[in-house]
This record gives sequence, C-alpha cells and structure tokens, in this order.
Amino acid sequence: MSEGIHTGFDEQQYPYINKGLEGIVAFSTSKSFIDGQKGELIYSGYLIDTLAENATFEEVCFLLWNDRLPNAEELESLKKLLIEHRSLPQPVLDYIKTTDKSAEPMAVLRTAVSMLADFDDTHGKFDDTLFEGQAIDITAKIPTIIAAFDRARKDKDIVAPLDEGSTAFNFLYMLNGEKPGEQAEKTMDLCLILHAEHGMNASTFTCRTICATQADMYSAVTGAIGALKGPLHGGANTAVMNTLLELDKDPDTADAVEFTKKKLANKEKISGFGHRVYKTFDPRARLLQTMSKDLSEETGHQQLYEWSMDMLNTMKSEKDIDPNVDFFSATVYYSIGIEPDLYTCIFTMSRVSGWTGHFMEQAANNRLIRPRALYVGEKGLEWTPVEER
Amino acid sequence: MSEGIHTGFDEQQYPYINKGLEGIVAFSTSKSFIDGQKGELIYSGYLIDTLAENATFEEVCFLLWNDRLPNAEELESLKKLLIEHRSLPQPVLDYIKTTDKSAEPMAVLRTAVSMLADFDDTHGKFDDTLFEGQAIDITAKIPTIIAAFDRARKDKDIVAPLDEGSTAFNFLYMLNGEKPGEQAEKTMDLCLILHAEHGMNASTFTCRTICATQADMYSAVTGAIGALKGPLHGGANTAVMNTLLELDKDPDTADAVEFTKKKLANKEKISGFGHRVYKTFDPRARLLQTMSKDLSEETGHQQLYEWSMDMLNTMKSEKDIDPNVDFFSATVYYSIGIEPDLYTCIFTMSRVSGWTGHFMEQAANNRLIRPRALYVGEKGLEWTPVEER
Ligand SMILES: CC(C)(COP(=O)(O)OP(=O)(O)OC[C@H]1O[C@@H](n2cnc3c(N)ncnc32)[C@H](O)[C@@H]1OP(=O)(O)O)[C@@H](O)C(=O)NCCC(=O)NCCS
Ligand SMILES: CC(C)(COP(=O)(O)OP(=O)(O)OC[C@H]1O[C@@H](n2cnc3c(N)ncnc32)[C@H](O)[C@@H]1OP(=O)(O)O)[C@@H](O)C(=O)NCCC(=O)NCCS
Repeated sequence: MSEGIHTGFDEQQYPYINKGLEGIVAFSTSKSFIDGQKGELIYSGYLIDTLAENATFEEVCFLLWNDRLPNAEELESLKKLLIEHRSLPQPVLDYIKTTDKSAEPMAVLRTAVSMLADFDDTHGKFDDTLFEGQAIDITAKIPTIIAAFDRARKDKDIVAPLDEGSTAFNFLYMLNGEKPGEQAEKTMDLCLILHAEHGMNASTFTCRTICATQADMYSAVTGAIGALKGPLHGGANTAVMNTLLELDKDPDTADAVEFTKKKLANKEKISGFGHRVYKTFDPRARLLQTMSKDLSEETGHQQLYEWSMDMLNTMKSEKDIDPNVDFFSATVYYSIGIEPDLYTCIFTMSRVSGWTGHFMEQAANNRLIRPRALYVGEKGLEWTPVEER
Repeated sequence: MSEGIHTGFDEQQYPYINKGLEGIVAFSTSKSFIDGQKGELIYSGYLIDTLAENATFEEVCFLLWNDRLPNAEELESLKKLLIEHRSLPQPVLDYIKTTDKSAEPMAVLRTAVSMLADFDDTHGKFDDTLFEGQAIDITAKIPTIIAAFDRARKDKDIVAPLDEGSTAFNFLYMLNGEKPGEQAEKTMDLCLILHAEHGMNASTFTCRTICATQADMYSAVTGAIGALKGPLHGGANTAVMNTLLELDKDPDTADAVEFTKKKLANKEKISGFGHRVYKTFDPRARLLQTMSKDLSEETGHQQLYEWSMDMLNTMKSEKDIDPNVDFFSATVYYSIGIEPDLYTCIFTMSRVSGWTGHFMEQAANNRLIRPRALYVGEKGLEWTPVEER
C-alpha cells in the first residue's frame, strides 16, 4: 500500500462526513472490477461480455468462489452438488405453504434462507473448510424457495425440484410446472450470469459487514437479501416493471416521455436509472437491452420496449443519466412470463454467488467493520423526573 | 461542514484501503456519543450513568426514537403499546415450536423477526409515519420469541406474555414461568438500558446500510441480528461465559491467569476485551462490574467473578487492553439464571431500540451506502473451453 490519504476521526475538528461512503475503499477484492467511465465489468479476470457469450451460471459460481474457471471434473462435481442440495427441509416448506399469501416474495425468501441455518448440519459454523459447502447449500435452495412460494400463494401444488438440469432450467420448471424451452432456459441462464457479481454494492457490502463479525454465512446472506430488497438497490427491477404496466393500463393515451419529465420535475427518482459507479452505459444493461428488444418482438410486447426507449431517451436528454442493470432486465423477465414481484428474487438467485464469494474473501482477511458517526445531539442534560416533563 | 479531507477512489493511484472503515465518518447522528479516551457514553443528551440511575428501558426506547424523554402521558402510551404487541402470530409460534431443538437461539430469533414482516399490516412499508409503530412491534415481540424458543427446546410449555409489567419483568416471567423478584427485574432492566445504543457498531451499521436501500425495518433488524450474532460483536458475551464455565469444570486446578497468557501467546483474541473506540475502561463495563461483583456474592458464584478479575488484570498487564460491555454482562446474566447461549439474544432485546432509532434517522436523511473495493485480481483473461482447462 503506497500513496493515499486517510481521513481520521477527530471530534475537535469537524470531520468530513463520507455520506453514502462514496469513494471510500473498504477492501481489496479479486471478485470483480468495474470501470465506471469506460463501462466495463470483469468477474475474476473475465470481461462480462466473454462470460455472457461462453459461460454457464454454474461456471460463474465456481469462478466467483475460486477465482478461476473449473475443469470438466470440477464443474461436473459442482453441478451434482447443486442438484443434490435443491430440496428444502420440511419445516421450511411448511412455512412457505402456510404464511400469509400476500407476503412479499423477498420477505419470504429472507425468512426461508434464514431458517435454512437450523437444518444445516454445521449450523453455519464459521470455518473456512465449510464455506463452499454452505454456499452451495444456499445457492441450490434459493430457486426452490422462490418457486415454491409463488405456487403456494396461487394455491397451486408445489413442484419438487428435478434431479437433473441447470439451475435456470430447473427453476423455470419448478415455477411453471413444465419444462422450459431452450430459449427460455438460455435467457434465464444469461440473466443469472449478468447479475452474479458487482463489487461493493449495498447488499454485498452488507454481507461482508456481517461476515466481519464472524457471524455465519446464513446470517450474512439473509442480511444481504434484506438490502437487495430495497427499491434503491435490487428492488428497482420490480419498480421498473410496475411503471411500464401502469402505462400499459391505458396504452392509447400513455406517454412515457411526459411521464418521465413529470417525475423529474417533481424531483422523483426514476427506477432503473443512475448508478453510483457507472457514469456511462452499464455493459450489463447493453446486453439486456438487446435481449429485451428481441424478446419483446417475439412475444408481442413491442409497446413495452418502445416505452422503455422513450424513458431512456428522455433521461439521457434531460439529465444525462443512463439506465442500470435493472432497467431492461424487467422486460426480459416479463417476456419469459415471470411475475413482476419475483424479479428481485431472481436477482437474489444470481447475486448469492457473488455474496458468498465475498464472504469467503472477507473471512480470509478479516477485520471488524466499524465506522463512526458524528454526534450532533445535545450533551450533559440533567435528569428530570417524568412528572416534571 | 468545514475542514476535512475526503479520500477519493482513484484506480491509477493505489488508493488507501480503510480496513474495517476505522475512523471513517459515515453519518451524523443524535443517538449517541462515545468519548473513547475519557470512557464516556451519552444517549441523546444523557450520560449513561444518569440513565442507569434514573431511567427505565421503556423511557430509553422513547428517548432513542424521539431524541427526548417522554412526558407521563407519552410514557404510559408507549408502555401500553409495547404490552399490546407482545403476542406472536401463530405461524411464528409454530416455527419456534417445530424447528430443530439444537438450532442456535440467535438464528431462531433472526428467522422469527424476519417472519414477523409477513404478519405486520403494513408489510413493513417504508413510510416515516409508520416507522415508530414498526419499531414498537419488533421491540415488543423479541422477548416473546426468545422465551418461547428457550422453553420449546426444553420441551416446556410456552408461557404467554403478561398484559402488564415492564419488558424486563415480562421477559423473566415468560422465560421462567414465574414472576421475577424485584431485584432480578431491576438487574434485567439495567442491562437493557446499558446495551441499548452504541453508535456505529457493526450491527447498527448493518441496519443503516439496509435501510439506505429503502428496504423495510424488518429487513434491517433481521440483518442487524445476523451481525450481532458474530463472536467479534454481540456473540462475545456467550463466549465469555463459555470460557468461565470451561474453567469451572475443574475449579481446583483452574488458573485464569495462565489460561489468558497462553491464549495471548497463541495470538488468540480473548472474548470480552478490546474495542475499536474505547481505549480505556468502557463506562458500561464499569457499571456491569459492580453488578457482577454484588450478584456473584449473593448467588455464591464468587469464583467466577474472581476468575474474571484474574483475566482482567492479566489483559491489563500483558496487553493494556480493557474489558468491554460483554465481559461482565456474562456473569450478571448467569447470576440471574439465564442460559449462556441466550446472552446475545438478550443483547438483541435491548439493542433493537438503538437499531430502530438509527433506522428512522437514516431514512430521514438518506443516501445509498456503497463504498468501493480495490480490484487486485487479473484482467483481460481469454476464454478457454472447459475441455481444455
Ligand atoms: C442507484 C442510485 C441509488 C445511486 O445513487 P447515488 O450514487 O447516491 O446518486 P445521487 O442520489 O447522489 O444522485 C446524483 C444525481 O443524479 C440524480 N439521479 C440519480 N439517479 C436518478 C434517477 N434514477 N432518477 C432521477 N435522477 C437521478 C440525482 O437526483 C442527483 O441529481 P442532483 O445532483 O441534481 O441532485 C440512484 O441513481 C437511484 O436512486 N436510482 C434509482 C433506483 C435504481 O434504479 N436502483 C438500482 C441501482 S442498480
Ligand atoms: C472488539 C474487536 C473486534 C475490535 O477490533 P479492532 O478494533 O479491529 O482491533 P484490532 O483487531 O485491530 O486489535 C488491535 C490490537 O489489539 C489486540 N487485541 C484487540 N482485542 C483483543 C483481544 N480481545 N484479545 C487479545 N488481543 C486483542 C489485537 O491483537 C491487536 O494487537 P496487535 O496490534 O499486537 O496486532 C477486538 O478487540 C476483539 O476481537 N475483541 C474480542 C471480541 C469481543 O469481545 N467483541 C465484543 C466487542 S463489544
């Protein structure tokens, strides 16, 4: 470590508040690199475009957990383990079946993942020889939880996972009760690849902060799910779709340009736009845009795509803000028939690979994460008995 | 905001890594002030000693949520609401009764709190007019969850909450199935006051990071429970007790001085000692030490207290490191008959007041929390097909 200035905390001098921790470097990582100016993203050595063209989600999991691609034997072994861990413990299924049908899918996912810890043989023991097994357990079960809750809330029978097929294939099968076609599987797999990892975003950072107390991986992933749920983070993809569906309620008079301008005039944030790090087109958004265009045409949802483009052009001309990963993923998921309120769950299905990779990296070179806050309240107040207040 | 230097992120220059975010000021707050040199702690204006002497836990909750003490009417109203919200939804009780009996209490608490969101009328809606109600709901139900699981795992009947009495009184009643004496209630209440709030510790920071995505309060508290569970944070109190009980297995030959020296020689961390911010005796530890001494004598556990003092003196002379809040709270809880593996849950029962206060403060002046990581991996790797790896 060479150059660099470190802001110390000095109560005498009024310290600088790093609001949102923008630009503060908290860790070193080999998981991903973002060039926010050029619009480039690398996962452990490989450009996202290279992975999108060649990899499968399972290969990306291995990459993020081991910082290298698996050989044939390792990949087979990982796929087998992921398949073997798909089924849920009965109490987790019972919860999914009996909870309130109007519960939020991300809330149910958060609870169910948390509950898995009770049934893991190791109770999530903090031990580096166990971490990859725990990551496999969580990654394998998340799709099952999502599909089971979606079916349960619709009073449909829950579909048991297959003992074959990719994560993407099996998920769509459990969700719909029938095996997906090749294109739907490929689309789903590509989405999983594109969302797997993205540096120190709020959920990954939450995961590492929890890990740094030496709490277990179930705790860390549960916390990360909570963070991803927020509309300023992963929750944005559901919000994007809700906006488009709102316009679609009255398609003849809908005007996405006016809609966008009005929101901006009201100083509202538009979901699916803006990013702390990218100051240009997010490379994942570019890949998703192509998919969104093609799929919208094939499935007769061109109108939705056109409104997206109206919003995009308006945001560019009015604010010079580009779309982020959540903007076009919304219409992609819609085209393959997924309920809008499940989109953030699908993001989770993928991002858990990055979270758990970061967990292992944090555990290997750990320090408790504890920043400071500047106290701006009163001091030295005297006690007043309650009757005198 | 005046003076202060802000570390920008510059990939060209090797940036400074703020490991553990030590000294980085992430927020302003009116919740608490720590003077780590003098060993002073203030909650929203009042010295911890003042509160320990005069306040009740319910008053401290109001203080941390409103930055002022309640008047008589406000306090009555809060107590009433806390009592009304004590009962758990049936599915949460079902989970507690049917989960694995060897599950970790903190894991069960994390899951149960997460599950509460499904049954809150607002589904944890992110709306500042609802936050205090959500905070009351969570704060009121946590003691019920802890007591219910402890009884369920011991095959005892679950005791329904009382519709009267303080949080401390009702908790001990639900845990033991009989109403506590005045001293046990007072001890419990004092512990709740002392653990309620402590600036930007890892769990509070987790809570604010989740809040900053505009995720709901249930998500934020669930994440915070995960962070508190870690042995470098709240999990330390259970670890302290386990150490003392380990010594107590063979009391005649036990030597706490040697034990401590040996651990230090092995470069192990001793639970209950050290703190990122205090470089002197933690004022809470001082108050707890007095309680621990008195209670140990009354309950015939002087030996445990003496070993504590041996450890304390050895840590001071060998490393000049002082005990933290978790060191003496362990023997205090032990003296009032609480199971060691519940100590971190009791910490949660209290700290939830600070977490939810910080949640409201963060929501009122929000920005997404997203630091950076320095990429130290490879770049520009070419794809190799799996057969060639
Ligand atoms: C992602 C996001 C939270 C990043 O936030 P940030 O780095 O803290 O950015 P700031 O809030 O400081 O915004 C910087 C400027 O851009 C504007 N801006 C950023 N995103 C915007 C959006 N989506 N709509 C309208 N304006 C936006 C801000 O209003 C601000 O403008 P100002 O300087 O005129 O006040 C933010 O862009 C956002 O809220 N986007 C919408 C939610 C979303 O899509 N999230 C998913 C991210 S993958
Ligand atoms: C609380 C804690 C995580 C703070 O960590 P931190 O600010 O990152 O402190 P560091 O790990 O940088 O430690 C600074 C030095 O003190 C030593 N130290 C700190 N706490 C120690 C402990 N409990 N036992 C032995 N040595 C300790 C470190 O080994 C280090 O020594 P070195 O400079 O010779 O390497 C740390 O003190 C700890 O792990 N304590 C034990 C767990 C505990 O009680 N947690 C509850 C906190 S309320």
